[in-house]
Amino acid sequence: MKQLQVLLVAGTHGNEINGIWLFDQWKRSPFLINTQGIQTFKVIGNPEAEKAGKRYIHHDLNRSFIKESYLSTNFSNFEERRASELVDLYGEAGENPCQIALDFHTTTAFMGSCLVVYGRRDADLALASLIQNKLGLPIYLHESDQKQTGFLVEAWPCGLVVEIGPVGQNLLNSRIISQTKLILETFMEQIHKVMNFNLFFPEKVIIHRHVKSVDFPRDKEGNIVGYVHSLRQSKDWQELKKDDELFYTLSGETIRFEEHEPYIPVFINEAAYMEKNIAMSFAKREFWNFKQAWKHSLIDLVHQK
Amino acid sequence: MKQLQVLLVAGTHGNEINGIWLFDQWKRSPFLINTQGIQTFKVIGNPEAEKAGKRYIHHDLNRSFIKESYLSTNFSNFEERRASELVDLYGEAGENPCQIALDFHTTTAFMGSCLVVYGRRDADLALASLIQNKLGLPIYLHESDQKQTGFLVEAWPCGLVVEIGPVGQNLLNSRIISQTKLILETFMEQIHKVMNFNLFFPEKVIIHRHVKSVDFPRDKEGNIVGYVHSLRQSKDWQELKKDDELFYTLSGETIRFEEHEPYIPVFINEAAYMEKNIAMSFAKREFWNFKQAWKHSLIDLVHQK
Repeated sequence: MKQLQVLLVAGTHGNEINGIWLFDQWKRSPFLINTQGIQTFKVIGNPEAEKAGKRYIHHDLNRSFIKESYLSTNFSNFEERRASELVDLYGEAGENPCQIALDFHTTTAFMGSCLVVYGRRDADLALASLIQNKLGLPIYLHESDQKQTGFLVEAWPCGLVVEIGPVGQNLLNSRIISQTKLILETFMEQIHKVMNFNLFFPEKVIIHRHVKSVDFPRDKEGNIVGYVHSLRQSKDWQELKKDDELFYTLSGETIRFEEHEPYIPVFINEAAYMEKNIAMSFAKREFWNFKQAWKHSLIDLVHQK
Repeated sequence: MKQLQVLLVAGTHGNEINGIWLFDQWKRSPFLINTQGIQTFKVIGNPEAEKAGKRYIHHDLNRSFIKESYLSTNFSNFEERRASELVDLYGEAGENPCQIALDFHTTTAFMGSCLVVYGRRDADLALASLIQNKLGLPIYLHESDQKQTGFLVEAWPCGLVVEIGPVGQNLLNSRIISQTKLILETFMEQIHKVMNFNLFFPEKVIIHRHVKSVDFPRDKEGNIVGYVHSLRQSKDWQELKKDDELFYTLSGETIRFEEHEPYIPVFINEAAYMEKNIAMSFAKREFWNFKQAWKHSLIDLVHQK
């Protein structure tokens, strides 16, 4: 039986530097992180963007893992090439084949720590359930968003994004680094338990299912003419009901949430999303039954059946 | 007698956008800000940098107001030209001569709102005293720093910087915008009182006198190898005593404050200062007697004697 190998990524966005710092520290002190003896590979996702202090050079690396593109040899920009390189090095069929990828991000939104799952892959949901059960982290299920595709973890059989905030771009923050370390070690601990069939899955999982993203109010020329209302700022994960305040405009008008169904707002005022025309995203909070198929999928993957 | 004119500047740094927003809002709603009938000119300091979403294009505009440079006609970069243009338009001898300049900034440091005074000009200290007396804002006296010169307000007979935080670069925040509005209106109210000799100056002023700035711990190659210690992060204005924690290094070492005299740390982890090799600055908290000369200087200026 082949051994499980886990890919750990920091700095997929070059200006999210707290994970990069933790990896540097780990390189100097090999016992800093308890990986439970599991073989891991640590990589900086976008080292060129890190050097430039920017999110990316030409294109968001975490939107560049499009199969047709990373399997080709004809790259139109730096990040397409880097995506292909990472898949060649650590993909399922790569030089150092990894079965699980964990991608550590930070956000300027006041979201605390959360897990992001892309689509409904069984092994992802099983692994996220284990972490939620242990640390209580919210799970944000990103799906049905045609404009946002090509996420790094989607190129691996199982993979999650960890988002930790709030922290400014290019800023080191001790709390964010500690949180990254805690979550990374909890992942390794839980994966180790799956390897040893020492499993305890919860019966229910709380999922925040992505529904849509909303843009800032804009004028005809596309200029932003409204900011996040003071009653909405820093209120990530807090239920939004009809008539709640959303934005405040240049002309002094309050724009309210008009829908009848409540939503949970997330990524409120994330600095990097302005260019993506996203002021915040809306999710539905749902209680899902844990499915046995998720568990089997993760066990099979970890045991490489 | 000529009328007093006040220059109001936002966006001297293109990624500090909350003041720019307030000015835009004001343009649409002329009664938004009560200027007490005083003639004001509102300008965006660095509109090119604003468009680019950056602090500056070639050089920090707020270090570009060097007399030899802005009086010349031979500019080596964009910001030198812009500094000269602003002096030509609104300087004491400019097209629209202004006697007082107020320059609205934001910081990523957890400093709340404060006033920055450059050097010990009498009128600056009088005006800052009036605002401190009204709003309780700390005054940070920046002086004796050879590396940091050429500040915008120094090109006007009287001028202060207003710093408001914490807020990320390129992010609008309702609280920061409200604070900017409150402080701007308080300035206009106090200047109006000086115009009407309706004066109440405090007897004592609390001054945080800049002593020095400290860099992050670095290795031989100049790479940052330490971050602000968790016990120092967000603790701006809180006294630092011998043996207090300052940084935490890659190798797991805590670097402590070694000096015997206590200091007040400010601009802790300001994102824009990394490139200036500043992790934080140290100030001395001092109680100064209010000097009559300050008052006379401000009165003379406001009444254009």
